Amino acid sequence: MTHQDELKQLVGKTAVKYIKNNTVVGLGTGSTVKFMVDALGDRVKNEGLSIVGVPTSERTRKQANSLGIKTKGVDEVDHIDLTIDGADQIDKHFQGIKGGGGAHLWEKIVAINSDKNMWIVDESKMADELGSFPLPLEVIPYGSTQLLKRLEEKGYHPQFRIRDGKKVKTDSNNDIIDLHLQRIENPRSLAFDLDQMTGIVEHGLFLNIVDTVIVGREDGPEVLTK
Amino acid sequence: MTHQDELKQLVGKTAVKYIKNNTVVGLGTGSTVKFMVDALGDRVKNEGLSIVGVPTSERTRKQANSLGIKTKGVDEVDHIDLTIDGADQIDKHFQGIKGGGGAHLWEKIVAINSDKNMWIVDESKMADELGSFPLPLEVIPYGSTQLLKRLEEKGYHPQFRIRDGKKVKTDSNNDIIDLHLQRIENPRSLAFDLDQMTGIVEHGLFLNIVDTVIVGREDGPEVLTK
Repeated sequence: MTHQDELKQLVGKTAVKYIKNNTVVGLGTGSTVKFMVDALGDRVKNEGLSIVGVPTSERTRKQANSLGIKTKGVDEVDHIDLTIDGADQIDKHFQGIKGGGGAHLWEKIVAINSDKNMWIVDESKMADELGSFPLPLEVIPYGSTQLLKRLEEKGYHPQFRIRDGKKVKTDSNNDIIDLHLQRIENPRSLAFDLDQMTGIVEHGLFLNIVDTVIVGREDGPEVLTK
Repeated sequence: MTHQDELKQLVGKTAVKYIKNNTVVGLGTGSTVKFMVDALGDRVKNEGLSIVGVPTSERTRKQANSLGIKTKGVDEVDHIDLTIDGADQIDKHFQGIKGGGGAHLWEKIVAINSDKNMWIVDESKMADELGSFPLPLEVIPYGSTQLLKRLEEKGYHPQFRIRDGKKVKTDSNNDIIDLHLQRIENPRSLAFDLDQMTGIVEHGLFLNIVDTVIVGREDGPEVLTK
């Protein structure tokens, strides 16, 4: 295991201490989340912890089930107590960007249905302000070239996400446009503008969603609360 | 032809007089629009009118092509000069509800990419205020049951659109939730609220989009301009 992975593993172990017995837990996706799910599997096996996981991806569902963690779909539970997920960039006000993996729509749907949300990240994800990480938009393919033009006119520096010469498709079979903004001065007003635009299914700005962030520092996990 | 159809045919013939040579024309969908496309085909055949149509549905595309009207997709044209479409309800401020046919997402994408928009309707569609026609929402299936609960809590009286015991699917393979509001006091603030909600791809409120409405009255088509 690399040193980086050791730090992520420590973060995962710290995060699962926040999970209480008989609760419903949203399970994100990503490299740090993978270690968290491993640590959760240990608690289920060793302590008899009883929880239901709500995974945000097929990959996390398979991992959870293989470790003996029960899972349900987001529409099969009454509520979600706590969701633990990763993030691509987090500023000092706990505002974040997600969607580097193209799954921010489903991740946001799970997040907004959760009483509490926690992000677990390595320290490279922490930033003074958002924007150096490109902001992902999930967009309807019909009319998306016109949408790209409108985003260009607004100065948002949009680019379709391409892999192997083809547009990347989301789980909902939509396209992704990344906004190369470098710097987001006012995340709230940008979110407001993007929310109004027809053809954008969801943007990757996660604002006022998270109250706890656990960062993998060299000297061990740091727990930040709002 | 029924008397009702005669009135719609007159509206269609009046509408196509607004189409200029060498323009790009968005072609909506619906029973009145069908007569408009017929009348447009006559102008193409008899006057040699040269236009490119951008249809909002497969049904309209087939009808247009069968009448010798060239068509292109919304992403294949530079711009759209004028779109002529139907509407489900229009208030006295030219605000409208669309989506009774479940196609409001694509219709709105064509509408916002058009320099001008015209609605053609029979007089039953005109109302003092919006809301007696249920407001359609196109929604992401993932998490849609949780979304329905949130809409219920807001007092929006949501219902999944069901046909033959199954959820109706849109062209983008999403679900439809109809809001049975009876009365929409402030369309703008409702649109604002729905725009912010994660999981709603697009609502059927078309606000500040149309500048001309042609209504099929008993004594002939009435042209209303804003």
